[in-house]
Amino acid sequence: MAEEKWNELEAVPNRYPDRDYTVNISIPEFTCVCPRTGLPDFGTIIISYVPDELIVELKSLKYYILNYRNLGIFQEAVTNRILDDLKTALKPRKIEVIADFHPRGGIKTTVTVRWPE
Amino acid sequence: MAEEKWNELEAVPNRYPDRDYTVNISIPEFTCVCPRTGLPDFGTIIISYVPDELIVELKSLKYYILNYRNLGIFQEAVTNRILDDLKTALKPRKIEVIADFHPRGGIKTTVTVRWPE
Amino acid sequence: MAEEKWNELEAVPNRYPDRDYTVNISIPEFTCVCPRTGLPDFGTIIISYVPDELIVELKSLKYYILNYRNLGIFQEAVTNRILDDLKTALKPRKIEVIADFHPRGGIKTTVTVRWPE
Amino acid sequence: MAEEKWNELEAVPNRYPDRDYTVNISIPEFTCVCPRTGLPDFGTIIISYVPDELIVELKSLKYYILNYRNLGIFQEAVTNRILDDLKTALKPRKIEVIADFHPRGGIKTTVTVRWPE
Amino acid sequence: MAEEKWNELEAVPNRYPDRDYTVNISIPEFTCVCPRTGLPDFGTIIISYVPDELIVELKSLKYYILNYRNLGIFQEAVTNRILDDLKTALKPRKIEVIADFHPRGGIKTTVTVRWPE
Amino acid sequence: MAEEKWNELEAVPNRYPDRDYTVNISIPEFTCVCPRTGLPDFGTIIISYVPDELIVELKSLKYYILNYRNLGIFQEAVTNRILDDLKTALKPRKIEVIADFHPRGGIKTTVTVRWPE
Amino acid sequence: MAEEKWNELEAVPNRYPDRDYTVNISIPEFTCVCPRTGLPDFGTIIISYVPDELIVELKSLKYYILNYRNLGIFQEAVTNRILDDLKTALKPRKIEVIADFHPRGGIKTTVTVRWPE
Amino acid sequence: MAEEKWNELEAVPNRYPDRDYTVNISIPEFTCVCPRTGLPDFGTIIISYVPDELIVELKSLKYYILNYRNLGIFQEAVTNRILDDLKTALKPRKIEVIADFHPRGGIKTTVTVRWPE
Amino acid sequence: MAEEKWNELEAVPNRYPDRDYTVNISIPEFTCVCPRTGLPDFGTIIISYVPDELIVELKSLKYYILNYRNLGIFQEAVTNRILDDLKTALKPRKIEVIADFHPRGGIKTTVTVRWPE
Amino acid sequence: MAEEKWNELEAVPNRYPDRDYTVNISIPEFTCVCPRTGLPDFGTIIISYVPDELIVELKSLKYYILNYRNLGIFQEAVTNRILDDLKTALKPRKIEVIADFHPRGGIKTTVTVRWPE
Repeated sequence: MAEEKWNELEAVPNRYPDRDYTVNISIPEFTCVCPRTGLPDFGTIIISYVPDELIVELKSLKYYILNYRNLGIFQEAVTNRILDDLKTALKPRKIEVIADFHPRGGIKTTVTVRWPE
Repeated sequence: MAEEKWNELEAVPNRYPDRDYTVNISIPEFTCVCPRTGLPDFGTIIISYVPDELIVELKSLKYYILNYRNLGIFQEAVTNRILDDLKTALKPRKIEVIADFHPRGGIKTTVTVRWPE
Repeated sequence: MAEEKWNELEAVPNRYPDRDYTVNISIPEFTCVCPRTGLPDFGTIIISYVPDELIVELKSLKYYILNYRNLGIFQEAVTNRILDDLKTALKPRKIEVIADFHPRGGIKTTVTVRWPE
Repeated sequence: MAEEKWNELEAVPNRYPDRDYTVNISIPEFTCVCPRTGLPDFGTIIISYVPDELIVELKSLKYYILNYRNLGIFQEAVTNRILDDLKTALKPRKIEVIADFHPRGGIKTTVTVRWPE
Repeated sequence: MAEEKWNELEAVPNRYPDRDYTVNISIPEFTCVCPRTGLPDFGTIIISYVPDELIVELKSLKYYILNYRNLGIFQEAVTNRILDDLKTALKPRKIEVIADFHPRGGIKTTVTVRWPE
Repeated sequence: MAEEKWNELEAVPNRYPDRDYTVNISIPEFTCVCPRTGLPDFGTIIISYVPDELIVELKSLKYYILNYRNLGIFQEAVTNRILDDLKTALKPRKIEVIADFHPRGGIKTTVTVRWPE
Repeated sequence: MAEEKWNELEAVPNRYPDRDYTVNISIPEFTCVCPRTGLPDFGTIIISYVPDELIVELKSLKYYILNYRNLGIFQEAVTNRILDDLKTALKPRKIEVIADFHPRGGIKTTVTVRWPE
Repeated sequence: MAEEKWNELEAVPNRYPDRDYTVNISIPEFTCVCPRTGLPDFGTIIISYVPDELIVELKSLKYYILNYRNLGIFQEAVTNRILDDLKTALKPRKIEVIADFHPRGGIKTTVTVRWPE
Repeated sequence: MAEEKWNELEAVPNRYPDRDYTVNISIPEFTCVCPRTGLPDFGTIIISYVPDELIVELKSLKYYILNYRNLGIFQEAVTNRILDDLKTALKPRKIEVIADFHPRGGIKTTVTVRWPE
Repeated sequence: MAEEKWNELEAVPNRYPDRDYTVNISIPEFTCVCPRTGLPDFGTIIISYVPDELIVELKSLKYYILNYRNLGIFQEAVTNRILDDLKTALKPRKIEVIADFHPRGGIKTTVTVRWPE
């Protein structure tokens, strides 16, 4: 696993750009590292978007998600960052990212970000 | 299984055209082939429509779905194509097609297409 | 079981006609016969209505549902017919009938009819 | 169990009357008697209300519910009556009562009453 | 466990204040004491808020929740108080607190408070 | 409901006495009264037996269970008593009675009695 | 549906008679008629057997099960009879039949028959 | 809550000592304190025993369980201690105690103790 | 998908042959073709074995399973054949294959084969 | 996360060595790396042992499990290795390790190792 280099998201042409439709992608095996404790965080990332001219290439998304495996990042930050990266790569009509983390110390957190709000 | 010839959708008259009502059809045994890897994809197709003068004949729908068994086609494309074929065959008042695929490589995709949007 | 004679729906007075409230009735043991194959269909009928002056008498509803046990009738037709019969018997303010059938040949159908639409 | 005397609902002051908030109470052990057959009915009562100056005292509610244990009363009537009694006792801003009964003869009934409608 | 001193909520800067997004926090191990019986109450606290300039620091929230472990407080009061304390500490754009208690004597209570209403 | 007179269990001939087979009967709507508090207890009674010459008549069992509705009796006692009454009425080859009660004060009890042990 | 004539079970040769293996068949759409009330009973039939020289032909089993649709028969009797008919038709090494009926009047029955006991 | 004094278990006579039967008690609201971190632990205690001359009085068990609420004790120790205390108080024929704790740091522990082993 | 050529199972050395341990493999996306109707069958294959000197290579297993996608074969035969092929390729100490098929015509079949019996 | 150095398992004295009892530990957030593809594997590790003089210290177990996060290791190997390491560290009377992995390519594997066999 090459965690030193950053795996970029790739986009491929949407063959049905005349129609508003929704692609929902769920990634139950997300893991990153808590910057405060150095211990791993686990969770599910759920992405939902209406494509314009581009759709995400799923293999590049799998490798993009691997970027976070050994990265120290807060739960609110990772959710906003995935949204920003997908917005830049896909220029979708609408997008939402939900990060649903496993409980830590008896507390379970979910972060939901949407664009446009 | 005659995958060489294409099984067409058939429509039969709707006996209650004066009323707007909804027919929901769920097909949990959908399978096609990923054009990139040549490996099979599995999923559930959920069709929901308000009929006008025609309803779909269910046996023809079962054989229509078999068309995809050995066909290489992307997940976004198959969902849009099923919607287009049903729209042509039934001329419904409204229609929605959801394709909910099994996870591949830890990533699960669902595509939702609606007409009119 | 007297399937030769048709069991009629009976209505009894609604003691709270001044108030809009909802009665929801679920019948998971519905069965009729497919007119094409002669084989039985199974499903759940869900009735939801806002009564006006009358509510349905539940024992008569149980016997009314038995009418369909050996009757050959299509899934779209049986749903519309139950709605029509209840509308005639109860003159409700609103009514919805959902028929949720068991899968046949890997295909599962649900029909939803509402009045007023 | 003193089923001869009727246990009254008691109300206590709402310490947060400046705020609209919701109290939801679920009672899965409700039982009364069917007036037609003399046999017991079982179900869950779900009460949801926005208090004004008063909230219900829960112990009095438990004893109030016991009033119905040996009382012959129809399902539509008991739901409307509980709503009326709570409305009188609490003078809430909004209230809803749902009675969700166990199936009888393969038929399951739920009654939903709301004020204001 | 230092139940004598009150553990204060702490806030940290929100790094994405330009965007309206939602943080949902679920605490299934909440316990306090019923002031009437002296016996413990158990439940789940669910907090949902749209941050402005501040987000809650989760470790301080864990210790804040411990304040209630040996405190005698009514169910309606604890829900309103947690909302008030979070509103003061975070000055969020929106906030909701749900307290979903375990059943007592066959009765289960849930209290929902929202700001702004 | 005639709780004053005791409804007796009735037995009917077993048409397959040459074979050891099992009849399992589940009664999820059992209720009796706690002799200490006067408050109702709720639970499920599960009976499992291998008949000899007699099987239980189910309608008589339904009325027999009604005997307990307003009877004050401890949980261990009611389970043993139902086993004794069925043993007397049916003279089965084997029998087991499980009483699975709803929680009270955060404590849930199940009592299991078997004959022969 | 030809309920007048009795559909016989058919057997086909077992291609692996040298090996003891188990075939488990579950039929969730079983229905017959209660001889006492004339009302339908519903349930699931679960058959489990180790074949000797013959296995059951599934289409004949489907039609065999239809025999019971309008037949008045007690729950203990139908279970024993299905076992006897399968034993005669298949001469299996071992067989078990479980009939798991829907509740009636708050009482749910399951009958289990095995050969050899 | 008087955590200073220790609430003793009480036993009452078993009215069916001639028979071996099982009492199963589940307490899903168990909480104690981790002696290392001072933070609360949560879990379910499941007690299963065959009584001899005595059965546990349930109200005393509820108060006995409260003893642990503010006590620092390890998970293996608390399970063994509850078994020892019940064995001393009830002198049962057999007893088992299972303590099933909530996860901490992504690790979930269950401890099972039996007498006689 | 090269269904013309047969994909063989491959085995790799077991690094822990001194120990009896179990490998359980579940393949929920199995599909073959019914030789009578030409329509696809769907199901889950569950393999459980104690390896001796060899373990199955999972990628070769995935391709081996693809052999059946367009093959007409009965449910009892496919289960026995998978067991035979794995026995030949792996020479395991013990092996079991379960094939759990989706319902057809309201009938669901599971076949279980074990070696040694 | 210090994946360069290996975190050792630590043991602490068992305070109840005179008794055979079972400690069950479930770790649903296990992750390692597939040595063939370099992609992460996810799964649950379930450890069950009867301690002799020592029990595992849970915090050291949490850090021990982190050793595998960036280690390339096969599924059969990791299960056997965890068993060997725990056997060495704890010298338990009995131990079992189950590794239940997430599906890859439609195939799900579980490995079970026991000592003594």
